[in-house]
Amino acid sequence: MAKGSSISGFPEWLPAERVVEQRVIDTLREVFELNGFIGIETRAVEQGSSLLKKGETSKEIYLLSRLQEVGHESDTPVDQRIGLHFDLTVPLSRYVVEHSGALPFPFKRWQIQKVWRGERPQEGRFREFVQADIDVVGDGTLPEHYEVELPLVMVNALERLREFGLPKATVHANNRKLSEGFYRGLGLTDIEGVLREIDKLDKIGADEVSKLLVETCAATPQQAQACLELAQITASNGAELVERFNALCEIHHIDVNGTAYAMAKEGLDTLTMIIDEAYKIRPGSVIADLKIARGLDYYTGSVYETFLDGADDLGSICSGGRYDNLATQGNRKYPGVGLSIGLSRLVSYMLHRAGATANRISPACVLVAVWNEENRDDSNAIANTLRSRGIAADVAPTAAKLGKQIKYADKLGIPYVWFPNENPADDGSDEVKNIVTGDQRPADAQSWEPDTVYAQQSVTVNAENR
Amino acid sequence: MAKGSSISGFPEWLPAERVVEQRVIDTLREVFELNGFIGIETRAVEQGSSLLKKGETSKEIYLLSRLQEVGHESDTPVDQRIGLHFDLTVPLSRYVVEHSGALPFPFKRWQIQKVWRGERPQEGRFREFVQADIDVVGDGTLPEHYEVELPLVMVNALERLREFGLPKATVHANNRKLSEGFYRGLGLTDIEGVLREIDKLDKIGADEVSKLLVETCAATPQQAQACLELAQITASNGAELVERFNALCEIHHIDVNGTAYAMAKEGLDTLTMIIDEAYKIRPGSVIADLKIARGLDYYTGSVYETFLDGADDLGSICSGGRYDNLATQGNRKYPGVGLSIGLSRLVSYMLHRAGATANRISPACVLVAVWNEENRDDSNAIANTLRSRGIAADVAPTAAKLGKQIKYADKLGIPYVWFPNENPADDGSDEVKNIVTGDQRPADAQSWEPDTVYAQQSVTVNAENR
Repeated sequence: MAKGSSISGFPEWLPAERVVEQRVIDTLREVFELNGFIGIETRAVEQGSSLLKKGETSKEIYLLSRLQEVGHESDTPVDQRIGLHFDLTVPLSRYVVEHSGALPFPFKRWQIQKVWRGERPQEGRFREFVQADIDVVGDGTLPEHYEVELPLVMVNALERLREFGLPKATVHANNRKLSEGFYRGLGLTDIEGVLREIDKLDKIGADEVSKLLVETCAATPQQAQACLELAQITASNGAELVERFNALCEIHHIDVNGTAYAMAKEGLDTLTMIIDEAYKIRPGSVIADLKIARGLDYYTGSVYETFLDGADDLGSICSGGRYDNLATQGNRKYPGVGLSIGLSRLVSYMLHRAGATANRISPACVLVAVWNEENRDDSNAIANTLRSRGIAADVAPTAAKLGKQIKYADKLGIPYVWFPNENPADDGSDEVKNIVTGDQRPADAQSWEPDTVYAQQSVTVNAENR
Repeated sequence: MAKGSSISGFPEWLPAERVVEQRVIDTLREVFELNGFIGIETRAVEQGSSLLKKGETSKEIYLLSRLQEVGHESDTPVDQRIGLHFDLTVPLSRYVVEHSGALPFPFKRWQIQKVWRGERPQEGRFREFVQADIDVVGDGTLPEHYEVELPLVMVNALERLREFGLPKATVHANNRKLSEGFYRGLGLTDIEGVLREIDKLDKIGADEVSKLLVETCAATPQQAQACLELAQITASNGAELVERFNALCEIHHIDVNGTAYAMAKEGLDTLTMIIDEAYKIRPGSVIADLKIARGLDYYTGSVYETFLDGADDLGSICSGGRYDNLATQGNRKYPGVGLSIGLSRLVSYMLHRAGATANRISPACVLVAVWNEENRDDSNAIANTLRSRGIAADVAPTAAKLGKQIKYADKLGIPYVWFPNENPADDGSDEVKNIVTGDQRPADAQSWEPDTVYAQQSVTVNAENR
C-alpha cells in the first residue's frame, strides 16, 4: 500500500501495485463473462431506507450531505437521506426490482465496484474497498442448480488468480435451513441469535460461544453443546454428511417426523447435492462445513465462505449465499444466489504476502530517445508508428544526455530504448537497445517486434509462491 | 438510461447500455496505455481542506458522515471532514505530493473513475459520473511539448470513439497568460473576475457578458468591448493567430514594450507552438479559440475545451489545462498539464443521439440446451469445454421445452443454441443452431468455432451515425 496514506482505512496503491489490482479485475471479468454473466454497474449511493433495511453492516453506513446542507443534516430523517452502498447485493436487489421489465430472467450478473463501510478506524480494516460479485436472480423461482454452479465459477476464478500468488481456495458451504431446523428441533427459538453467536466461533472459541448461547439465546448448556457439535461437522461427500448429521439428531433426540427435522432435511438435501455435484467437477473445491453461519440476515438457504490454504488469518475471502426475500415487489419475489470476493484484501495479500508486483511501472514497451528538441517530431513519429502496430511507446521527456534518457526508461521499467537515425540522409537506420540484456540492433518501426518476454506489462510473484 | 432511476442525477445503465460504457472505457484505457500513460486509482474521498481549496466546483461537495455521527456532524469543522472527490485532478495532485518519492517524473498517468458533485438536482446534470483523465506532472519543471502532446492523445482517443457514434471532435485551446497579459495591458486588474465572466459567453451572450464586465469587474465599456473582441479570435495556424492578436493590441493601444504584453507574448508563443505542431500531425484537430477561459482557478497557462461537430448543446466534452501551482510541497512544485473527458455525458450522447447499443445483452456466444435435469452435467461439460477455448457459454436455466430455451437465448441475444447429443451411444453428434440465420449443423465442442460476425459481444450504432 502507498505509504503515508493519510486517511485511515482508505487504501491506495502505488502504480506497480495498481497493475496487480487491474490484472486481477481483468481476470475476474474474463472468467465471469466466459460463464455468461452480464456486467452491470450501479450508482454508488442508495436511499437510507434501503441501506438500513438489511444486513449486519447496516450500522456501518456513510451518509452523504451537500456542503450547503451542513448544519441542517439532521433536518432530514436518516432513511430519507442517501448513503454509500456497503455491498453490491442490496444495490442489485434494488436494480432488479426497478428494472425488472427490461431484464432477462434468470438474470446472471457480474459487478466489480468499490463499496464503503463507515466503521470505526482500526488496524487492517478497509473502509473503502473493491468487491467482485456474481449473482443469479430469478423471477418468482430460482433453480437449485445455481447453488452449486456459482461457487464453482468462483473456484474457477480463484484458481486463475493463483498466477498472482494466491494459494488454493476451498469453498465451505452450509445451509440456513439445516441449521435452523436443527436448532428448532432442539427446542431453541431465537434462531438469528444462535446464528450470530455461532458466527463468532473462529474469533472467540467454543467456550465463549457456548456461554453467549446460554446468556443471550436462552439455550440450556445441553442445547448450546448440541449447537457446537453441529458446528464441528465437515464433510466432502453427501453420504458422509447425511450420516454424521443424522447421528447427531439421534443423540439429541430430534424427532425425524417433526416439522423442524423436515426443514433441516430440506437444507441437508440441497447441501448434499452441492458437495456431490462439486466433487464430480472439481474434487476438493467445495466442502460442507456446518459452522458457516454468515452474519447477514438476508440469507435463507445456502451460505458460503471461502478460505485460502495457509492463510486462515485472512478469514473468508469470498462469501455469499441464497436470499429468497431480499428483492420483492408486492407479491412478486426475486430469489437470488451469489458470492462476493473481497478484492482489495485479496490484492493486499498478493502484494504483501505473495510478493506480486508488476514487471514494469509503465505500460510502454519502448522509450524513443530524442537527440535534440528540434527533432522531437521524428521521435514522436516513430512512437506513433509503433503504437499503430499495438506496441506501447513513450518518448523521452527531454533531449537530455543519452545516459539520462536510458535512466528514465530504467526507472519506468521500459525494456527497450529506441535510437532514431541521427542522419537519415546517409545509409544508417534506427537502432533499438534492450537495456536489460544490452542487446542492440538496427530496427524499423514499421516491422520491429519486441521479444515476447519483454512485450507486455505483466505481474510476477516470488518464486516460492508460484 | 434506466427508466425510473429513483435518485435524481445518479444515472444507471441497463445491461445493453453498460456494454457501450464498458467498451468506451476499454478503448480509452487502450489508447492511454499505448501512449505510455500509467494507470492509477485514487480513493474516492479527500480531506475537506483539500476539496475546498481549489476549483469552481468547490461549492459542490458531498461530505460524508458515519451513521454514528448523525446529529453531531457539525461538531467537526468542514475542512476536517472527508468528502467525495469532484474531479480527478485534485486527487492526482495530492497523490503526487504524498508519494513523490516512489514515482517516476515526469509522471504520465491515466485515471478513469467516478466523481461526485453535490449540485442542486436539475434536468440533465449528473451528480455522479465517470471521468477519464490523462495528466503529466513534472518535478520542478515540465517541458512545454506536453501541452500539445496531451490534447493530441485525447484527439486520438476521441477519434477511436467514433465507432460508437461520436462525431468528429475539435480541441479549442487558449492560454491564461495571453488573456491575462491582454487584460492587464488594457488596464484591468480583476483578472479572475474577467475570466469568470468571459467563461459565460456561450451561455448568456456578448451583451450580458459586457454588462457584467462593467458591473462586476470595474471595466469601462471600451475595455469590455476589447475583452469581447479578444474572445472572438480563432485561428488554425500560428501566423494567423499572431497577426490577429497583434492587430487587436495595436487597436487598443497596448504597449508592446510593457510587462503586460510580455506576459501575453509568453502565452501567445505557447499557443502558437501548440496549434502549429498539432497541424503538422493532425490538421484541424486543435485550433486557437481565445474565448476559452475555463472557470477553474488552478489553471496557469494552456487551457482546453473540446467540442463535437453538430453537438454544440453538449458543451465541452473534454477539458483541461496546465496548472503550475496545484501540487506543492514546501518550495517544491509539481507543475502539470492534463485533460479530462466527461465520460458519462459522452456515453449518454452515444446511447440517445447516436443510437449506440450492444449487439447482445449477454456476453455468451452459445446457450447449451438441457434435455432434462438429469443430463444437466452433460450440458455443463460442453459449456466448460467451450469456455476453456475462449468461447463464452451459458447453459439453459431449466430443462424446459426447446422453444422456451431458444426464446431465452433470443431474449439475451445469444446467437447460437447448442443441442447435446441425446443418445451418445449411437453414432449421432451434438448440433449447433444459429438462431439468427436458422443454420443448423453437427458440431464438436472441442473444435467448433462461431462465425466471426457472431463471435463477440460488440457495439453497433445507427447507420447514419457511422
